[in-house]
Amino acid sequence: MPHRPIGIFDSGIGGLTVLRAALRRLPGESFVYLGDTARVPYGTKGADTVIRYAEQAAAFLVSHGVKMLVVACNTASAVALPHLARRFRLPVVGVIEPGARQACRQSRTGAIGVIGTEGTVGSGAYDRAILRLRPDARVLSAACPLFVPLTEEGWSGHPVADICAREYLAPLQEAGIDSLVLGCTHYPLLKPVLKRILGDGIILVDSAEATADAIAGRLLDAELASAGTVPREGRTRFYVTDLPDRFRRVGSTFLGTDIGEIEQIDIGIVADDSRPAVRSCVAGGWHQ
Amino acid sequence: MPHRPIGIFDSGIGGLTVLRAALRRLPGESFVYLGDTARVPYGTKGADTVIRYAEQAAAFLVSHGVKMLVVACNTASAVALPHLARRFRLPVVGVIEPGARQACRQSRTGAIGVIGTEGTVGSGAYDRAILRLRPDARVLSAACPLFVPLTEEGWSGHPVADICAREYLAPLQEAGIDSLVLGCTHYPLLKPVLKRILGDGIILVDSAEATADAIAGRLLDAELASAGTVPREGRTRFYVTDLPDRFRRVGSTFLGTDIGEIEQIDIGIVADDSRPAVRSCVAGGWHQ
Repeated sequence: MPHRPIGIFDSGIGGLTVLRAALRRLPGESFVYLGDTARVPYGTKGADTVIRYAEQAAAFLVSHGVKMLVVACNTASAVALPHLARRFRLPVVGVIEPGARQACRQSRTGAIGVIGTEGTVGSGAYDRAILRLRPDARVLSAACPLFVPLTEEGWSGHPVADICAREYLAPLQEAGIDSLVLGCTHYPLLKPVLKRILGDGIILVDSAEATADAIAGRLLDAELASAGTVPREGRTRFYVTDLPDRFRRVGSTFLGTDIGEIEQIDIGIVADDSRPAVRSCVAGGWHQ
Repeated sequence: MPHRPIGIFDSGIGGLTVLRAALRRLPGESFVYLGDTARVPYGTKGADTVIRYAEQAAAFLVSHGVKMLVVACNTASAVALPHLARRFRLPVVGVIEPGARQACRQSRTGAIGVIGTEGTVGSGAYDRAILRLRPDARVLSAACPLFVPLTEEGWSGHPVADICAREYLAPLQEAGIDSLVLGCTHYPLLKPVLKRILGDGIILVDSAEATADAIAGRLLDAELASAGTVPREGRTRFYVTDLPDRFRRVGSTFLGTDIGEIEQIDIGIVADDSRPAVRSCVAGGWHQ
């Protein structure tokens, strides 16, 4: 089991910040990453829909023999974790609990801010996770719907990102938070602008890095950590559910390095228990 | 046939600007509107995926006995119209040809600008439609990926919309366009800011209004125009593929009036030729 890869999925490219942190944190592990790019974003969709999509994504990864499932998507972590844990007999790690845990540990006053998509904030998942760990906490959340398109547009350093961030963060600053959870996997790209606005007085909790720590901990607990090292090439296999061009182009910024081979698959129209059809795309050409 | 409704679909709420223009332009017609909100947006997805989604949406509308299909989505109009026209024996109207036609008619110099999503601009569909009608035209396009999230966020009048619009439009203004096609159904909400930036010298072509004119023309040509008038209530039936809450809330701004009953359906997991399952949602409660 320990030599098997770790499966990570997200609705699209955001989870690549989690993969990036995990690759750095766990040099001995290999990964299978699935971006459900044909159905991105999950953040504006209802819980039933997101659960169905997450189960299909997880089934695909399980069919690749992964030893652990990482739900690198805040929306899916908010609503689908119990379903996945029930259905698949594997350790399942989401991105909400690790970020919540780190915020609870680091906050002095207990006034914790959370920013995320409409879906994540609306679900109240961070509030619940934080209050379970630290009942004295006061959680203030703000949806930041423009942050995802801004980062995907490559405008993380644009003046518009600064204006949006000031507007989104103002109520949280006024309320006196002392730490802020980046409750969306896209947001690590905005850390420079967020740090500039918030200053040194507010701790930024990067849930991608917190999740990488949580993956490491769960691997040790379950005696699943790989002993060896893996060659740089082939450490990660990438799958997407739509054309790979945009994923490759925008995703490289999120991963911090070029993405090589990407296979396009269809997980939405197959029966749940059959193995999904895989078409492989190498340098633009298709082969079965 | 003339008494039957007109079917309109879009990936989400943007097509409501087309419905709004059609309701105003065609007081004797009734409509069935489908927003494929579980899979929105189409604009960043590949052609094969968009064609499959469009065929499923069209099949659903055809199962409701519509007399005409209106593809109120630029991405789907760009790639799926010939497929739909081949498969369904109904008049099919898209949003690209009408906008292109009006721009060709109104432009004096032939220097025509087009703005849209990455998908629409990347498809080159407007360029082809314009050059087919007016081979002397010079088409300049710009993708404006932040316009959709800005309008859905209700920030059409926000200073950020102004900054984004200035940045996106600058190359088109410098190139000397004399008309600009709003090649995305969300963009009519940005007309005030676009008019302010472009001034009186550049004609704005609202493809929603142009499409309503085209629908009227095709109904007359095909002898399908309704003779009567329909009561205000029940003129439009609304269907969505995800939870209706967000569609109702954000969509009302796009439609310019409150949206009443909305039914949630699932068109993605049924076989192509079977009738999609319909669950009806009235005031938050579900019944089969």
